[in-house]
Amino acid sequence: MDFQQLIHSRESIRNFNPHKPIGKETLERILEAGRIAPSAANRQPWRFYLISTEKNLAKIRSCYGRSWFMDAPHVLVVAGKYSLSWMRTSDGYNSLETDLAIAMTHLVLAAEAEGVGTCWIAAFNADELKKSGLFEKDEHIFAMTPLGYPNEGFKKNGLKNRKLLREVVVYL
Amino acid sequence: MDFQQLIHSRESIRNFNPHKPIGKETLERILEAGRIAPSAANRQPWRFYLISTEKNLAKIRSCYGRSWFMDAPHVLVVAGKYSLSWMRTSDGYNSLETDLAIAMTHLVLAAEAEGVGTCWIAAFNADELKKSGLFEKDEHIFAMTPLGYPNEGFKKNGLKNRKLLREVVVYL
Repeated sequence: MDFQQLIHSRESIRNFNPHKPIGKETLERILEAGRIAPSAANRQPWRFYLISTEKNLAKIRSCYGRSWFMDAPHVLVVAGKYSLSWMRTSDGYNSLETDLAIAMTHLVLAAEAEGVGTCWIAAFNADELKKSGLFEKDEHIFAMTPLGYPNEGFKKNGLKNRKLLREVVVYL
Repeated sequence: MDFQQLIHSRESIRNFNPHKPIGKETLERILEAGRIAPSAANRQPWRFYLISTEKNLAKIRSCYGRSWFMDAPHVLVVAGKYSLSWMRTSDGYNSLETDLAIAMTHLVLAAEAEGVGTCWIAAFNADELKKSGLFEKDEHIFAMTPLGYPNEGFKKNGLKNRKLLREVVVYL
């Protein structure tokens, strides 16, 4: 599958088979895509938490109370530290969120390439997550996604509701 | 080229042939990858500026004074508006930088898939760019990259200096 096919086929999946965990090698290929992502000044200010045990999944599910989220056999949480990322001296811009978004994009697309469903979640309750005790105190919890395979018979939506190219591109 | 090959082969390119512009269809495939990128609540708060005329390139080159940057036949600038992007009510987090980083990652990887070199630049002088008069006043200029083909004989570095998987992944 080439890159254009990959990004056109990816969509947010909200249907997971709780009884079909992802194999170790597949998970490692997905995580590898986050590991080699570029970051400002190559600081790699990230940590990827792969939560797969029932005990730990139970600790984080309250942060995002959708029923389909409860079904996912894995949840991947991307976190990082502002103290590790690059800062632009001219205006104090810190690259952490940008770096983590690049890594998360790599992870999501690598999952798609493996046939693994994802749904980038930003609307989680960060306080609930912190209370789980699974993360370091000074870590910024940036984003999460379930990882898993859809239930049998699930069909992708196949639609992309996007602005037209001429609405978003300016040729100068 | 599959996704793993693509992300492993991508690297920052600082060598451009000024006499070899990119064809229209190739540019459109690259821009399409930005257009269909996901964003929080599908807000698509972005605009992609493709600067290719000598007159307009001259207006922005002072924002990043590297000699190799001067050689690029195109510069792509990714900008957006905080008023258009999603906001998390619990803590006021605005998704603009995240959304633009996702789009930029799509653009950079789509360029790689086309054999087009990129170098994600964050260390530009935003004030100089604003002075160019090419962008809207309330736009946040997020990132830019040259787009072009390397000079003949150029070889990629081929090295990825990254932390090990066990340094960045936590299995829970």
